[in-house]
Amino acid sequence: MAEAERKSMPPSVVPEDVTSDDAHAMGHNPLPILRQVVAACVYPELLDGLVLPEAAQNRARRALRDMEEGNVGGYNHQHRSLVVPARVARFLKRRDGGVPSDPRNIVICNGTASILPFVYSLVVDETAALPTAVLVPVPGPRLHGAAAGLAGAVAVPYSLAEERGWDVDGDAVRRALQQARARCHPKVLCVVNPGDPTGHVLSRQSMEAIIRLVAEENLLLLADEVQQERAFLLDRPFLSFKRVLWEMGAPLASTVQLVSFYSLSKSVAGESGFRSGFLELVNVEEGVVLPFHVAQSIPRPCVLGRILLDILMDPPDEGDPIQKALEEHRGALLHSLAHNARLVQEVLARAPGICCHPVQGGARAFPRIQLPPRALRHAQELGLEPDVFFCRELLEATGIVVAPGSEFGQPEGTHHVGLSLLPPPEKLTQILHTLTRFYAAFLLRFS
Amino acid sequence: MAEAERKSMPPSVVPEDVTSDDAHAMGHNPLPILRQVVAACVYPELLDGLVLPEAAQNRARRALRDMEEGNVGGYNHQHRSLVVPARVARFLKRRDGGVPSDPRNIVICNGTASILPFVYSLVVDETAALPTAVLVPVPGPRLHGAAAGLAGAVAVPYSLAEERGWDVDGDAVRRALQQARARCHPKVLCVVNPGDPTGHVLSRQSMEAIIRLVAEENLLLLADEVQQERAFLLDRPFLSFKRVLWEMGAPLASTVQLVSFYSLSKSVAGESGFRSGFLELVNVEEGVVLPFHVAQSIPRPCVLGRILLDILMDPPDEGDPIQKALEEHRGALLHSLAHNARLVQEVLARAPGICCHPVQGGARAFPRIQLPPRALRHAQELGLEPDVFFCRELLEATGIVVAPGSEFGQPEGTHHVGLSLLPPPEKLTQILHTLTRFYAAFLLRFS
Repeated sequence: MAEAERKSMPPSVVPEDVTSDDAHAMGHNPLPILRQVVAACVYPELLDGLVLPEAAQNRARRALRDMEEGNVGGYNHQHRSLVVPARVARFLKRRDGGVPSDPRNIVICNGTASILPFVYSLVVDETAALPTAVLVPVPGPRLHGAAAGLAGAVAVPYSLAEERGWDVDGDAVRRALQQARARCHPKVLCVVNPGDPTGHVLSRQSMEAIIRLVAEENLLLLADEVQQERAFLLDRPFLSFKRVLWEMGAPLASTVQLVSFYSLSKSVAGESGFRSGFLELVNVEEGVVLPFHVAQSIPRPCVLGRILLDILMDPPDEGDPIQKALEEHRGALLHSLAHNARLVQEVLARAPGICCHPVQGGARAFPRIQLPPRALRHAQELGLEPDVFFCRELLEATGIVVAPGSEFGQPEGTHHVGLSLLPPPEKLTQILHTLTRFYAAFLLRFS
Repeated sequence: MAEAERKSMPPSVVPEDVTSDDAHAMGHNPLPILRQVVAACVYPELLDGLVLPEAAQNRARRALRDMEEGNVGGYNHQHRSLVVPARVARFLKRRDGGVPSDPRNIVICNGTASILPFVYSLVVDETAALPTAVLVPVPGPRLHGAAAGLAGAVAVPYSLAEERGWDVDGDAVRRALQQARARCHPKVLCVVNPGDPTGHVLSRQSMEAIIRLVAEENLLLLADEVQQERAFLLDRPFLSFKRVLWEMGAPLASTVQLVSFYSLSKSVAGESGFRSGFLELVNVEEGVVLPFHVAQSIPRPCVLGRILLDILMDPPDEGDPIQKALEEHRGALLHSLAHNARLVQEVLARAPGICCHPVQGGARAFPRIQLPPRALRHAQELGLEPDVFFCRELLEATGIVVAPGSEFGQPEGTHHVGLSLLPPPEKLTQILHTLTRFYAAFLLRFS
């Protein structure tokens, strides 16, 4: 929230920020047994006592055996470069129904945000006449455009098809490509699945079409799949691009270049503060893989984050209390996301002028709100985007902070707000009702 | 150690790696009270019991009050962008004898390695006819060259003056600049102080000369000061470039652009695994400062690392058990570094053909070793750098791993080895004796 916005609020209103996809910031509790393992790794004297459950102690002992000198305080380079990648590869093979995964193609990183600029910088050709370009979805996370810019690439937006539940529209991508080629050299197609803030989960059919498109257009496919553990509909499960590509068989399976991301922050653990994640490179030339391994600069993620990541990579095991707790946690998280998604749907469906496509995964909804022409003119007079004006008015009147759609980009002439699915249901219900009441009054005011 | 080297060793020899400047990897113990604070932050249930000392519990409570929802599991953006920078600024003011420091010019980062490429990328001009260049010291950490490369800049080496205890030689810098300008555009002078692996600590006089040089040549001064808490000689204390610049007064104090680094990994805590550090920007234009604050991509360091960093920023307070423990830890660390530096000096001084300048700070020594002409020819036949050949022979015969000087760069025609000052003294004594005995035999063998 900008300082100006804060100042303009009545002092009695405590702002209620419902924009974040950070589970813990939205009030979710950490899973105690994960924290117990980490606490014991940090301060191994806890292993001698009765304070921590045996399962946590045992898992901590196993984690400490992976450390140089049994100490999480060193860089522990081998843990990063060999130990965890081997376990990640095993996890991915299981996730993808047996599709093989090579630990050498896995890079443990300090979260997607930190490594994305490096990924983009490896495809940027600074000596070329035209700048390198990356196609990024709109709406989508701002991160990709920012990272492309830092890497010296141009971000070229392509529009998702709102009318088809934010599906990727091949024609829109091709149009964006064609227009871009006059001024830059597009090399990467970035696809976000499950979508953020759009909350769609791609079907196999859409994914196959995307894969054929990148093959035809000779693009690298950058799959931002960080929300993969938040696909909550049984009839629309998350499928990885790696798996779909593999199952399409030759020649695509062995030629399409793919980089895919996994994030501890958006995992069932939701531990953003511990900074960990990985990327997998598929069919990527040695010349691109190598810098990740030799570069001194990239892969030094926090050791404790890697320990949490490693636990998430463990095979499911009902006999193991940690795995059992994780599965229960996962169940509760998916249940609450699905519940909240339905809630958004139901409450907003009753508000004429607001329309929200069913959310299938991720942690945000992105409803469209029609703003009356007088409100648009008023916003223009204030020098504000209309959706920013709406959100500011909402904040001032109610204390609720939603994200203006222009923060993520939106189809031209439309206006949206971004809304987290992570608050407790009672709180979300209240917020949705306040939002729709405010919107009705807003319509009246500007009609 | 390369696989080939490992295989060529007698199976009975356990390799003894003495190259690292990672204190914990070299067997140093973490400071328990720091770990107790972190454990309590990770698993706040520990705050209810008697397991952890009260001082640790209190400090953990204070740290948790800085967190959103009292939880270290979220991103905690404000902690990164406001809370810790304010405390860092206070720390820097105290460190630099009252020189003011502005929190807005401080960027909390995930260790120097991760942020360096960003720093370099901000000065790289991709549209210019000549590539941007960064002057890096030789010998010096490989990191700078690697990071410059990742950012799309050219690394131009300048030689440190071995004969003057590895001081920065202005003439050498000017020569490097002059030669470079035909093929690139040098914009940054990188100075490492205390030096690594060279172990020198710059005098105020040298620093003033460097500052005048960057002003004359219109360069940004990048001060890698990460080893600042490891300057162990009373008569050669660490001075920051920020302080020396300020004390030189106008016009330099308000014009020379400076970026300086601090690292949790090389601090008295030595907690590399927790990934934290910061940089301070001095006299740097808004256009360069801004990207650090708006870029989504950079500043998301591990929350626990930031908590440790924050503790190190606390003002000294004899009444506070944590500060007392830290000061004792610092005393012991500096004492052991100074002791080991003298040990290296004394033992190697007795070995004809080996020469080591007195080490003043940092965690490595970089002795010069004369290699006989027959050994040089032999190395050439094997296609190896002579120092790599020497180190490999040493490893095979004794199991001791030292770093070949070519890893850091060295004056042409000379050969060095890099050696950690962090092992326990008894172990270092043994290693030094084994090294000198092996060297004597090596000389005989190739004489």
